[in-house]
Amino acid sequence: MKINILTLFPEMFDIFNHSIIGKAQEKDLVKIQAINIRDFTKNKHKKVDDYPYGGGAGMVMAPQPLVDAIRSVKEENKGKVIFLGPRGKTFNQDLAFKLSKEEELIFVCGHYEGIDERVYKYIDEEVSLGDFILTGGEMAAIPVIDSILRLKSGVLGKDESFEDESFSEGLLEYPQYTRPEEFEGDKVPEILLSGHHENIRKWRRFKSLNITKEKRPDLYSKITLSKEDKKILEKYK
Amino acid sequence: MKINILTLFPEMFDIFNHSIIGKAQEKDLVKIQAINIRDFTKNKHKKVDDYPYGGGAGMVMAPQPLVDAIRSVKEENKGKVIFLGPRGKTFNQDLAFKLSKEEELIFVCGHYEGIDERVYKYIDEEVSLGDFILTGGEMAAIPVIDSILRLKSGVLGKDESFEDESFSEGLLEYPQYTRPEEFEGDKVPEILLSGHHENIRKWRRFKSLNITKEKRPDLYSKITLSKEDKKILEKYK
Repeated sequence: MKINILTLFPEMFDIFNHSIIGKAQEKDLVKIQAINIRDFTKNKHKKVDDYPYGGGAGMVMAPQPLVDAIRSVKEENKGKVIFLGPRGKTFNQDLAFKLSKEEELIFVCGHYEGIDERVYKYIDEEVSLGDFILTGGEMAAIPVIDSILRLKSGVLGKDESFEDESFSEGLLEYPQYTRPEEFEGDKVPEILLSGHHENIRKWRRFKSLNITKEKRPDLYSKITLSKEDKKILEKYK
Repeated sequence: MKINILTLFPEMFDIFNHSIIGKAQEKDLVKIQAINIRDFTKNKHKKVDDYPYGGGAGMVMAPQPLVDAIRSVKEENKGKVIFLGPRGKTFNQDLAFKLSKEEELIFVCGHYEGIDERVYKYIDEEVSLGDFILTGGEMAAIPVIDSILRLKSGVLGKDESFEDESFSEGLLEYPQYTRPEEFEGDKVPEILLSGHHENIRKWRRFKSLNITKEKRPDLYSKITLSKEDKKILEKYK
């Protein structure tokens, strides 16, 4: 999978040289290219922003460098152009899955007070990270790209996994414990030391259902309990 | 404001050496310190994770290095300990405002399959970026910290602004335009060139209401229209 990022701060994407995504790049499983929008400006002072028509505080990113930057990657590639902004659909695991099926993606990161409205015509999809404001689209592109790329085959190694993780099946994950058996007076639940796989599976399912119900009633209300779930909830309550 | 980040990948936070937050650090408006959890492990192989009790794929972050890392900053500081995880309250602009009032914050970034459940007792607040999975808490800490710090006095310079931005007042922002007046056949709306500030203000309010209604009906349903809003909606419809 190829990810093109159009940004005023390409060096920010050095973050993907580390950890899991770093290894995926080394193994050529994914290719991440950060392109400087400023390289496309025809302004003699290399400016990429200007005052807003109609007045007001802040600067607006001018259409020409942005649109030319998009075209520079759209020409060679056929990638979907995604703009990170507040009007977009809120990013979630379903959208991560959907986008992970694409061969190439082009992320456009806005900065300053926003982008010139006329650039929207060159954008295929707007995605929002959530209901909060960032200094730039880069800060949203990073988790979005991370979340998409970890779903690509081979990216998660043997030490990682996406079995039983939160939001798969719409539930939060059950609690995890590792050594030591007792930490500062707190013990690992006995059932996890029992070696009884079937009981452990049911206990974990119970915990998963219970934590979701308590912490995220909105998610819990959307799931359909199976016959087994109902039995488990009855047994452990 | 001081931000302490407990992480296995401190180098990822070099991202804050750039752009707006980079300048804020240079001006000593904010201090960001990334601390390696691995420095606190008492394991002779410097391991920070281990197999989960009860079996299953993935590794779990062991309690000792995490808790000792938390204590190392909690001792000097009085910062609130925030863990980035899926069980938390979904981050939004209100939470960004609330956290921006703190003097110090300690962010704990989990990795692998999660953290040992017994660590939760040392955490003051869990915050979730949204309903999707990341390779590590770092990817969530970055936008959360960015969103908090930009609200600190002096961090946004004269070219940036948080007037009229999306989610202030629960609305999306109105469209912005900058030069040229005509870009590839698309013209700036005439009203913005009129110089009539009062009409521009009303048009922008109309656009803001209208875009929110179209793109984010969930946000729109929560706002209370003023008398003037109702007049504006009537006039421009």
